[in-house]
Amino acid sequence: MKQFKRTAMLLFVALIASGKAFASEANLKIPDLHDATFPHFGGMDGWHLLLFGALVIVGTLSISLYLFKQVKSLPAHQSMLDVASTIYKTCRTYLLQQGKFLAILFGIIAVAMVYYLSMANAEATGPDALSTPVVVILVLLFSIVGMAGSYAVAWYGIRINTYANARTAFASLKKRPWDVVNIPLRSGISVGLFLISLELVMMIIILLFVPRSIVGYCFLGFAIGESLGASVLRIAGGIFTKIADIGSDLMKIVFKVKEDDPRNPGVIADCTGDNAGDSVGPTADAFETYGVTGVALISFITLAIPADQVDLQAKLIVWIFGMRFLMDIFSGISYFVNNAISEKQYGKSLDFDFEKPLTRLIWIAAISCIAISFGMSYVLIGDITVGGKLLPHLWWHLATIISFGTLAAVLIPEFTKKFTSSKSDHVHEIVTASREGGPSLTILSGIVSGNYAAYWMGLLMVGLMAGGYFISQNLGIGNAMSGYESIFAFGLVAFGFLCMGPVTIAVDSYGPVTDNAQSVFELSQIEQIPNISAEIEKYFGFTPDFERGKHYLEANDSAGNTFKATAKPVLIGTAVAGATTMIFSIILLLKGVGMLSLELTQAPILLGLITGGAMVFWFSGASIQAVTTGAYRAVEYIKRHMKLDKTQADEKDSIEVVRICTQYAQNGMWNIFITLMTATLAFALFDPNFFVAYLISIAIFGLFQALYMANAGGAWDNAKKLVEVDLQEKNTPLHDASVIGDTVGDPFKDTTSVALNPIIKFSTLFGLLAVEIAVNMSTVGADGVKHYTLAHFITAGILLAISMYFAWRSFYKMRIKVEE
Amino acid sequence: MKQFKRTAMLLFVALIASGKAFASEANLKIPDLHDATFPHFGGMDGWHLLLFGALVIVGTLSISLYLFKQVKSLPAHQSMLDVASTIYKTCRTYLLQQGKFLAILFGIIAVAMVYYLSMANAEATGPDALSTPVVVILVLLFSIVGMAGSYAVAWYGIRINTYANARTAFASLKKRPWDVVNIPLRSGISVGLFLISLELVMMIIILLFVPRSIVGYCFLGFAIGESLGASVLRIAGGIFTKIADIGSDLMKIVFKVKEDDPRNPGVIADCTGDNAGDSVGPTADAFETYGVTGVALISFITLAIPADQVDLQAKLIVWIFGMRFLMDIFSGISYFVNNAISEKQYGKSLDFDFEKPLTRLIWIAAISCIAISFGMSYVLIGDITVGGKLLPHLWWHLATIISFGTLAAVLIPEFTKKFTSSKSDHVHEIVTASREGGPSLTILSGIVSGNYAAYWMGLLMVGLMAGGYFISQNLGIGNAMSGYESIFAFGLVAFGFLCMGPVTIAVDSYGPVTDNAQSVFELSQIEQIPNISAEIEKYFGFTPDFERGKHYLEANDSAGNTFKATAKPVLIGTAVAGATTMIFSIILLLKGVGMLSLELTQAPILLGLITGGAMVFWFSGASIQAVTTGAYRAVEYIKRHMKLDKTQADEKDSIEVVRICTQYAQNGMWNIFITLMTATLAFALFDPNFFVAYLISIAIFGLFQALYMANAGGAWDNAKKLVEVDLQEKNTPLHDASVIGDTVGDPFKDTTSVALNPIIKFSTLFGLLAVEIAVNMSTVGADGVKHYTLAHFITAGILLAISMYFAWRSFYKMRIKVEE
Repeated sequence: MKQFKRTAMLLFVALIASGKAFASEANLKIPDLHDATFPHFGGMDGWHLLLFGALVIVGTLSISLYLFKQVKSLPAHQSMLDVASTIYKTCRTYLLQQGKFLAILFGIIAVAMVYYLSMANAEATGPDALSTPVVVILVLLFSIVGMAGSYAVAWYGIRINTYANARTAFASLKKRPWDVVNIPLRSGISVGLFLISLELVMMIIILLFVPRSIVGYCFLGFAIGESLGASVLRIAGGIFTKIADIGSDLMKIVFKVKEDDPRNPGVIADCTGDNAGDSVGPTADAFETYGVTGVALISFITLAIPADQVDLQAKLIVWIFGMRFLMDIFSGISYFVNNAISEKQYGKSLDFDFEKPLTRLIWIAAISCIAISFGMSYVLIGDITVGGKLLPHLWWHLATIISFGTLAAVLIPEFTKKFTSSKSDHVHEIVTASREGGPSLTILSGIVSGNYAAYWMGLLMVGLMAGGYFISQNLGIGNAMSGYESIFAFGLVAFGFLCMGPVTIAVDSYGPVTDNAQSVFELSQIEQIPNISAEIEKYFGFTPDFERGKHYLEANDSAGNTFKATAKPVLIGTAVAGATTMIFSIILLLKGVGMLSLELTQAPILLGLITGGAMVFWFSGASIQAVTTGAYRAVEYIKRHMKLDKTQADEKDSIEVVRICTQYAQNGMWNIFITLMTATLAFALFDPNFFVAYLISIAIFGLFQALYMANAGGAWDNAKKLVEVDLQEKNTPLHDASVIGDTVGDPFKDTTSVALNPIIKFSTLFGLLAVEIAVNMSTVGADGVKHYTLAHFITAGILLAISMYFAWRSFYKMRIKVEE
Repeated sequence: MKQFKRTAMLLFVALIASGKAFASEANLKIPDLHDATFPHFGGMDGWHLLLFGALVIVGTLSISLYLFKQVKSLPAHQSMLDVASTIYKTCRTYLLQQGKFLAILFGIIAVAMVYYLSMANAEATGPDALSTPVVVILVLLFSIVGMAGSYAVAWYGIRINTYANARTAFASLKKRPWDVVNIPLRSGISVGLFLISLELVMMIIILLFVPRSIVGYCFLGFAIGESLGASVLRIAGGIFTKIADIGSDLMKIVFKVKEDDPRNPGVIADCTGDNAGDSVGPTADAFETYGVTGVALISFITLAIPADQVDLQAKLIVWIFGMRFLMDIFSGISYFVNNAISEKQYGKSLDFDFEKPLTRLIWIAAISCIAISFGMSYVLIGDITVGGKLLPHLWWHLATIISFGTLAAVLIPEFTKKFTSSKSDHVHEIVTASREGGPSLTILSGIVSGNYAAYWMGLLMVGLMAGGYFISQNLGIGNAMSGYESIFAFGLVAFGFLCMGPVTIAVDSYGPVTDNAQSVFELSQIEQIPNISAEIEKYFGFTPDFERGKHYLEANDSAGNTFKATAKPVLIGTAVAGATTMIFSIILLLKGVGMLSLELTQAPILLGLITGGAMVFWFSGASIQAVTTGAYRAVEYIKRHMKLDKTQADEKDSIEVVRICTQYAQNGMWNIFITLMTATLAFALFDPNFFVAYLISIAIFGLFQALYMANAGGAWDNAKKLVEVDLQEKNTPLHDASVIGDTVGDPFKDTTSVALNPIIKFSTLFGLLAVEIAVNMSTVGADGVKHYTLAHFITAGILLAISMYFAWRSFYKMRIKVEE
C-alpha cells in the first residue's frame, strides 16, 4: 500500500503535466459526414451509409452471441463442468482485481483530464460548441468507454472459454475429433466477432453522433483508454500465467508427475493463467490495436489532407469504415463456410491434421478480405476526384496496398509454422539436438529457431511494406497528402494486417481453450469415477474412449500452440506498420513550429534510436525477472505442499499459488508502468526529434524482440509436445530437456513478446501528448524557431532519474527473497 | 571442395563488381605533412614530429618483446610444459588453416582490385603521380599488410599465451598468488603493446611515406584487409571454441567428471579453442578496430574540412596521432606502475581479490589517457586558428569529447562487473533461482542479467555520446566542418574508447591464459607424478601446495571471465560510436550527387532500419546454429570415445574432436560470409539512403545484441564458478543447472556477440565501395538528380536472392545429421 501511494503521487504529477497537451492536440477537425455537399454513395450520404453499416454490425454482434449460446448448450459431464466452474471463479477473482487496478489508474488520469479540459475548452468553437461541463463529461465518458471496452471483451472471452473448455474435453471422448476442433474454434470466432463488432459500433457512435468540436478529444480519449487497458491486462496477465505455468510444469521433472496432475496445487493457477494470459491479454490487445489503428488512420486523413479538400477526407473515412464493416461480416461468414467444408471432410474421420481447418479458415478469410478491399474500393472510391481531377486508378492502388497487409496477416502464420509447428524442421532440430546435448542444446536450438523467424518474418514485412511504398509513390494525388503518401501507405498496410480481425482472434483464442480442455480432462479424474462408461452411455448416448480422447486433446493443444504463436507476430507487425502513422501528428506538429529535423545524421536521432533499444531490452529483463522471482516462490511452495499420497491438491494450497502469481504480477507491473511512463515523458521533454526516433526505435526493436521471443517460445513448446505425443517419451532425459526448453520459452512467448505491442502503442499515444506540452512550453528564439528551455531539461532529468530508479527497482527490489 | 568452388565463383563476381568503386572513392586528398606552409609544433614540422613519434613507438614494440622474453624465461615443470606445447601445436594447425582460408579469400579480392585499379589509375594525377603497375603493387601490398597485421598479432598472442599458461599453472603451487595474476597480466600487456604499436607504425608509414596520390587507396586497402582478417578470425574462432567448450563441458554432467579431465578427448580442443576464440579473435578484432577508427577519423578530417583549410587538416591529423603515441606509451607505463603497487600490496598475501589489480590497471591507464588528451591537445592545438580566427577553447573542448569515450572504456568494465562478476547480485540471483527452479530458472535469470546490462550500458553510451554531442555544438569553428561536428564528436568518442588499447587488450587476453592454466594443471596430472613434491623442492626450490594452487587457478579463472566480459562491450561500443564516422563518406557522396534524403519519415529509411534488425537476428541464429550442430557431433563423438578406465584420452580421439570443431567452423563461416557480402551489395544497389539506414541499424541492433549476449554469457559462466569454487557444490543438481547455463552462454558471449563488431565494420567498409559503384552506374534524371536504374534493381534482386539462399542454407544445410 505504501508502494501504491508513492507511485500514485508520481503518476498524478506526470499526468497533470500531460493533461494540457491533450486538450489542444486532440482538436482534430473531423468532417461532419452528413454535410450535403459531400459525395454521396448510391444516393445515400456518408453519414447514413455508416449508420446503416453499423446497424448491420449490431446484427453481427448477435451472431457472436448466438455462437456463445451454442457453445454453452453443448453437453459435458458434471465432473468436467465442476472443474471449469472452479477455473472460471478464479479467473473472475483475477479479473476483478485487475479491474480495481485499472480503476485506480484511470482515476488518476481522470483528475488530470478534468483539470485541463476545463481550462482548454475555450479552444472549441463553432456553431455546435458545447459548454465546458458537457465536454468534460463526454470526453471522460469515452475514455472510460475505451478502457471498459478492453475490459469487457476480456470478460466475454473468459466466460465463453470456460464454457468451451469443459465441452471440448467431453467431446474428445466421442471418437469424433472434428468436434474437438470445432468447439474451441466456434468459441474463438464468437470472441473475435464480438470484439471487432463492438469496436466498430463504438467508433461509429463517436464518428457520427459526437459534436464535431469534440470528436477529436473523444477519439483520443477512447484510444488512450483502450491502450491503457490493453497494456495493463497484457503485462499482468503475461506475468501471472507464466509464474503458474513454470511452477506447475517443473513438477513434471521434480516428481515425475504428468501434466495437470490433480495433486499438483499449481494446476488451477495454471488454468487460470491460460485464460489470463492467452485469452484476456490477446482480446484486450486486439481490441486496442484495431481501435488505435483506426484512430490513427482517421487522424492521418484529417491532418494530412488540406482543409479545403474536406470532401476527400470524408470520402476516405467512409471508405475505411465501409471496408471494415464488410470484412468483419465476411470473417464471420468465412467461419461458416470453413465449418461446412470441414464438417463434410472430417465429420466422420477418426484422425486428421488438426491444423488444417484452422489454416483453411485463415485463407478463406484472407481471400474474402482481399476481394472486399478491391470490390468496396471500386464501389466507394472508384469515381474519386482529387483537386477536381478524376483518378480512375486510385481505387485499385489503395486496395493493393491494403492487400499487402492482408497478405502479411496470412503469410506470417504460414512462416510461423515453419518455426514452431511440431512438424517443422526447426522443432525437429530442437528435439534432435536435445538427444545428445541435453537442455543446453535444447535451449540453443530454440534460440536459433527464434532468430531465424525474426529474420525471415522481418524480411517479409520489409518486402510487403516496400510494396505498399512503391505503389504509394504513384497515386497521382498531387499535394493532397502533403507528400506523406508513404505514411498513409504504411497505415493502410497496418489496416490490411488487421482486416480479418475476427479470424485472427479466433485462431488465437483457440489455444487457451484447448490447453484448458486438457487440464479439465485430467483434473476431473473422470476415468476414476465408478461405472463412468455406463453412465455416459446412459445419459449422453455414446461409449467414451478415454485413451483416444487424451490423444485428441494433446494433438489439439499442439495445434493451439502453433496458432497462438501465429497471432503474436501479426499483432506486433501492426505496431510497426502503424507506428509511423501514429506519430504522424507529432511530425506535423514539429513541422508547424519549425522544429522538425529528422535526418539520420543528426545526433539526437541516432541517440534516440539507441535509447529505444535500451528500453526494449530493459522491458524484456524486467518482465522476465517478475516471472522468475514469482516462479521461484511458486515452485518452492508447490514442492513443499505437493502430497503424492493424496488424490488431489488441497484447495487452500491451490488458492495460495494463485495468490503468489497475482502478487508478483502486480509488483512487476507497477515497476514496469512507472518506468515506462516517466521515461516516455522524460524523452519527450528532452528533444522532440530525439523522441520521434525513440518511438520508431522501440517499434522496430520491439518487433524483432517479439518475433524472436514468440517463435522461440512456440518452438520449445511444440518440441515438448513432439516428445510427449509423437515420440511418447515421457519421463526420459529427453523429456526433461524438452520441459526445460518449454519453461524457458514460457515468458519469452507469453509475457515479454506479447506485451511489446500494447507498450509501443501506449508510449506513442501518451508521448504524443507529452510532446505537445513540451512544444507549447518552449520559447521562440532569435531565429524565429521554437526552442526547448532549461526547464525542459531539468524536468526531463528529474523524470529520467525517476524512471531509472524504477528500472533499478524492477530488478533489485524484485530479487528472490531466500527464507533462511 | 564443391561448396568452395561454388562460393568462390560468387565471391569473384561480387568483388569484380565492387573493385571499380574502390578506385575513385579511395582517392582521398590527405595533406602532405612536410609542406613548409603548415603549422609547426615547437620548431618541428608535422612530418618530422610524427616520424619521431613513430620511432619512439618502435621502442615500445621492444618493451613488448622484452615482456615476451620475461614470460618465456619463467620456470615450469616439464609435465606442464608438455601440455602447453601440445596446445600450441594444435593452435598452430588451426591458425595455418585459417591463414590458407584468408589467402584464398584475399586472392579473389586481389584479382578484382588489380583489374579495376589498372583501369582507374587515370584519376590519380599530380606532381607525384605514379605509373599504373607501381600503384597496383603498392595498394595490393597495403591490403596484404592490413590482413597480415591482423594475422600476425593473432600469432603473437597465441605464442605468448601458450608460454604463459604453463608458467601460471606452475606458479600457482608457490603460495604466492600475486604471480598467478602477474604472469597472465604481463603476457596480456605484451600482446596489447605489440598490437597497438605495430598498428601505429604501419599507419605512420602509410601516412608519411606513401605518395599523396595513392595514400587514400592504401589506407582503405589497409582497413579492408584488417577488417576481412578480423571478421574471419572472429567468426571461425568463435564457432570453433564453443563447439569444443560445450562438447567437453557437457561431459561433466554425463560422466560426472571434473573440468579438464585428461580422459576427456574434448579437452585439448577446448584449450585450443580458448586461444582461437578468446585470444586470436580479440587481438585481430582490436587491431582492426584501432586501425579502422583511425582511418575513419583521417577520412573525416580530409573530407569534411574544405580543401582551402588544408593546414587545419594537417594539424588535426598530427594531433590525433600525437595523442595515440603518448597514450600507447602511457598504457605500457600504467602496467609497470600498477605492477609496483600490486607487488608491494599483494606480494606476500596468501589471498586477495584477483579482480582488484586488473581494475586498478584500467583506472590508472584511463586517468593517464585523459590527462594526455588534455595535455597533448593543449600543446598541439592550444593555439589553433580556424579560418584565421584563434580558438583558445577548442583544445579542451575536443579533449573533453575524447574523455567521454575514455570514460566509457573505464565505466563499461565497472558496469559489466555488476552483471557478470561472481560477486554481483545478478550472478547470485542466477544461483539462487537455480536452486529451486533448476536449469529453467538458471537460463531465464541469466537472460535477465543480459537484458539489464544492455539497458544500463546502452544508456551509459547514450549519455556519454550526448555529452560529446553537446560540446561539439559549441566548437565555434564556423563552417570548417560543413556542419558535421556531431559526426566528428562521435568519431572522437570512438577514439577515446580505444585510447588505452593496450590495457583493454591486456585484461581481455588475461582470460584465455587463466583458463588454459587451469587446464594445463589438470592435464599435466602433476599430482600423480611419484615424488613430485620432492622433485619440485629440489629443482625449483619451493614446496608445492596443490590444493591451494587449484583454488588460486579457479579464482583466477573467474576474474579472467569477468574481464573477458568487460572488453566485449568496449569493442562493440566503438562500432556504434564509429559507425557514423565510417559512413560519412557515403553521406558526402550522396550529398554531392543530390541523392541524400535521410529523414526518418522516408519509407526507405524505415525499411532500412527494419532490415538491419533482420540481418542481426539472422547472424545470431546462423552463428549459434553452427555451434549447435558442431557441438552435437562433438558430444556424440566424445560420449562414445570417453574411456573412464584409462588415465588419459587417446591422442587420435583428441585430434578427431579438433577436426570436428574445424569442419563446422569452416562450414558455418562460408554461409555467413556469403550471406553477408551479397546482402551488403544488394542493399547498396537497392537504394543508397536505405543502405545508410541499414548500416546504422546493424550497428545499433548489433550493439544491443552483443551487450545482451556478452553479459548473459559472462553471468552464467561466473554463476558456474560460484557454484564450483565458493559454494563447493560440484556434482549436485545445482551444479548441473549451472553447467547448462554456462554452455548456453558459451556461443552467446564467445561466438555471436564478439563477431558483431567486425561484421559491422566489414559491412560498412565493403558497402562504401558498393554504394560508390551504384552511384557511378546511375543516370541523371530530368530533375538533374541521379537516379538508380532498372539494372540496379535487377542486380540487387539477384544478389538478395543469393543472400537469402545462403541464409536458408545456414540453417537447412547445417542441420544435425543423425546417423541411422
